[in-house]
Amino acid sequence: KMWCFSNICYFSLEIQLQTQSGNILVFPMEGSHWINMDILLQALHSRGHNVTIVRSSQSWYIKDNSTYYSTYTVPIEIGFEREFISRTISEIIDFQRGALPLTSFFHLAVGMLGTLTEAHRGLGEFASGMLDDKKFMRMLNDTKFDLVLTDPCWGGGIILAKYLNLPLVYNVRWLIPEEAHLSIAPSPISYIPNMRSGLTNQMTFFQRVKNMIYYVVSQTQKHLVAKKVYQKICDKYLGPNNDFNQLLIDADIWLMRADFVFDYPRPTMPNVVYMGGFQCKPAKPLPQHLEEFVQSSGEHRVIIMSLGTFVSELPADMANEIAAAFAKLPQKVIWRYKGSRPDTLGNNTLLVDWMPQNDLLGHPKVKVFVAHGGTNGVQEALYHGVPVVGLPVAFDQYDNLIRLEDRGAAKMLTLSTVDKDNNFLTAIQEVLNEPSYRMNMQRLSRLHRDQPITPMDNALFWIEFVMRHKGAAHLKPASLRMSWYSYHSVDVALFLGGAVLLMLLFTFFLIRCLCNAMCKPKVKCE
Amino acid sequence: KMWCFSNICYFSLEIQLQTQSGNILVFPMEGSHWINMDILLQALHSRGHNVTIVRSSQSWYIKDNSTYYSTYTVPIEIGFEREFISRTISEIIDFQRGALPLTSFFHLAVGMLGTLTEAHRGLGEFASGMLDDKKFMRMLNDTKFDLVLTDPCWGGGIILAKYLNLPLVYNVRWLIPEEAHLSIAPSPISYIPNMRSGLTNQMTFFQRVKNMIYYVVSQTQKHLVAKKVYQKICDKYLGPNNDFNQLLIDADIWLMRADFVFDYPRPTMPNVVYMGGFQCKPAKPLPQHLEEFVQSSGEHRVIIMSLGTFVSELPADMANEIAAAFAKLPQKVIWRYKGSRPDTLGNNTLLVDWMPQNDLLGHPKVKVFVAHGGTNGVQEALYHGVPVVGLPVAFDQYDNLIRLEDRGAAKMLTLSTVDKDNNFLTAIQEVLNEPSYRMNMQRLSRLHRDQPITPMDNALFWIEFVMRHKGAAHLKPASLRMSWYSYHSVDVALFLGGAVLLMLLFTFFLIRCLCNAMCKPKVKCE
Repeated sequence: KMWCFSNICYFSLEIQLQTQSGNILVFPMEGSHWINMDILLQALHSRGHNVTIVRSSQSWYIKDNSTYYSTYTVPIEIGFEREFISRTISEIIDFQRGALPLTSFFHLAVGMLGTLTEAHRGLGEFASGMLDDKKFMRMLNDTKFDLVLTDPCWGGGIILAKYLNLPLVYNVRWLIPEEAHLSIAPSPISYIPNMRSGLTNQMTFFQRVKNMIYYVVSQTQKHLVAKKVYQKICDKYLGPNNDFNQLLIDADIWLMRADFVFDYPRPTMPNVVYMGGFQCKPAKPLPQHLEEFVQSSGEHRVIIMSLGTFVSELPADMANEIAAAFAKLPQKVIWRYKGSRPDTLGNNTLLVDWMPQNDLLGHPKVKVFVAHGGTNGVQEALYHGVPVVGLPVAFDQYDNLIRLEDRGAAKMLTLSTVDKDNNFLTAIQEVLNEPSYRMNMQRLSRLHRDQPITPMDNALFWIEFVMRHKGAAHLKPASLRMSWYSYHSVDVALFLGGAVLLMLLFTFFLIRCLCNAMCKPKVKCE
Repeated sequence: KMWCFSNICYFSLEIQLQTQSGNILVFPMEGSHWINMDILLQALHSRGHNVTIVRSSQSWYIKDNSTYYSTYTVPIEIGFEREFISRTISEIIDFQRGALPLTSFFHLAVGMLGTLTEAHRGLGEFASGMLDDKKFMRMLNDTKFDLVLTDPCWGGGIILAKYLNLPLVYNVRWLIPEEAHLSIAPSPISYIPNMRSGLTNQMTFFQRVKNMIYYVVSQTQKHLVAKKVYQKICDKYLGPNNDFNQLLIDADIWLMRADFVFDYPRPTMPNVVYMGGFQCKPAKPLPQHLEEFVQSSGEHRVIIMSLGTFVSELPADMANEIAAAFAKLPQKVIWRYKGSRPDTLGNNTLLVDWMPQNDLLGHPKVKVFVAHGGTNGVQEALYHGVPVVGLPVAFDQYDNLIRLEDRGAAKMLTLSTVDKDNNFLTAIQEVLNEPSYRMNMQRLSRLHRDQPITPMDNALFWIEFVMRHKGAAHLKPASLRMSWYSYHSVDVALFLGGAVLLMLLFTFFLIRCLCNAMCKPKVKCE
């Protein structure tokens, strides 16, 4: 038996395919976060695992029945409606258009606080409702799950894993309101830009000051909002001595929806697995009517535009300005837009309710992508090497876009100026005509695709690793259990500083005593 | 053409096999470091790359001609002889045996300083001699290399890469005298034990104090020894503004000879690739005489012992004590030992000059490995799941062994007590009879083998990545170019602290003025 063991070569992923099928409990986030969780779940299902989702009976997107997952439906609402997000985004658009330069900061500090509080309060209510349902929780406990897969953006999954005493895997982009591993890996504020700060990894002195202020504000926000909501739930359902932040950073594996082609290089941790672009795949053929429209563009090619799931409508004058700009171009345009048809819409522009974004981006005729900068779309553009004209609306969209702009692969506009001075038209023409945008994006694409294992295979490997070994405790640093003053060696510094001081004082007094002893007889003698 | 690009799936390593062959310039370290560099070079050769080595005409191990590499021979000595290391180790053994408990510390602080100084001075002389040879350097420059592969333990390769303006890849275990990424990744002293401190990642308060002292000492040592030698060479051959430490941390890829099964989890960086155990492979059949000896052990099985490349001889009384202990065991013993035959040697013990260590460790009859704790041997034991009785002599051997002991997979002895009170016999019997040692080592082995890609394939991938993309600049953090006070936000903290102070002062004076203004009329009125 042992002889066999010694002869086993390293597992390859093909061998892993024969891994016993696992039971995965998923506590997903709604909205665009669900889109990529869904892709991961399909892949897990196709490798033979049973996927079970906890969902609200009022879920926005997650269906009750599916061919690749089963559901436990909690008969309560999420705590806020889908329209809440759309409404917030409309408010943000209006706000930004009438805004002074300083507003973005006040917006961060105060404006979003209310929204965030309401969102987390709602998510917290859902989690409490679920944990209160004793019958439901017993049912979960009786089904032997191997792990909990969740987006830590919503704290409920973290608490559920602890309650059921199961290993925990994250599918994570950022944590609200700070970057994912500000809490897990050391994150020097001096070159790691805060989310929503609009900064790159190379900052001037005053940019570093700004970044520090953002850091302090976001930390305060975190303590005022998420921590407060979830700590209450921890105290009630998990008993004393369960600090929410402690549970949060104690996950077994962090599957980060980023990589270091897209994001800035920074300290990381052994249990953080980078799977940025895991959802990207080669383009499939387009539906016939789209293919015909695309081919009709001839040598001028095609521009596509989408502002994501939640921006269904723009203010009428802005939509008109954008449509008018498109009409002036020789290119064909496919615009995903649910608002009423702008008056200025040209013959070259096709309005659609939905488009096969990945297949279009992978189509050789598509030259420019006008995007709001959501992580999914930006990663797809990067994978396919299509340069971006960015129109960030909210959340982390500005941060995503600045990472492309900084590398010369995107041009960014702001909502407040997009409809002034032909800004929109100029930006599109610049990205169309200046070859560097496309070359830079293609370079990023080549770097991103050059990995020893695909991001999706890597993610699947580590989820199955956690199943095989019942966690990944050996990858967690000892620092997770340390107090802040031990971690930062404050006590040691004080002790050693004190010791040196004492030695100096002692030496000083010794010398003084010796001097006195030697001087006194002298005085006597004289 | 673009259409093709969009359809390329992620490269697999099989496709990489067709990568254009590269030209690799290797500046290796001598001694045991050469053993694993050699394995890497064989693998690179078998993937079709041309490997060229810079060696001294007096090289200890690196032959002038080989089937898988060519050499540039510099007609100068390395600067110290092979015997220098053996002699130093003999001195260390004698020193430790007659030593007080405190000596290990003084040893670190003072004893090794002389040795290190002499070693680096010698290595520096070799590097200067090479750089002085204008004809030789022109020859290197004319051959178009794709990258320099070196062990940063010896600074010469770093300076050579800068001189030739080539991308740089490290094959690295630790840096002398500090751990490899103390300088590249943030390394909290509170839970990352210093090399030679003998500490684990879980320290009491006073252990943390000890670790801090070791840190300060090793940093001082670094500035007094390596930095001083190599900075002089940098100034002379690279011109001004080439700080050696800056060059050192600026490598494109760090291939670390460790992983987080063997080493403690800690912050790491995107361009640090963990290839611990890359040299391990399934066992090949033993030579017939060894196989017969091993089989003759019957159910009692076999113990093997090796103290590495440099310990050829032990003090006679110690060798006798060890031989006598072996003689008392029912197991068969294979002992790699070049010293004179101990008088007490039993019939069950076979003395050999050299042994196929990996093949023996992978043999099902081998139950215990008595080892000095060099990285190579420890990794092989871990790969094959054979528990260890450790007898550390010098360098990082104690640190390597404590990582196994801490996980219950090894038992450690010290040279000063190994021949007293049956210590050696007791330790071997404990590891033989207590099943937990074997179980723990097998658990580590299972974790180590469970990787998405073999460590060797991973290492080869990243070397070829550097060839394909002419470096890996996108993986280097912005912090590499920052001053220490910017990096630690000292200037920002002072600025913000000052601003807050000014505001407080201003408010205070404003209130005082207001009070005065309001109080004065009162006085008048009264």
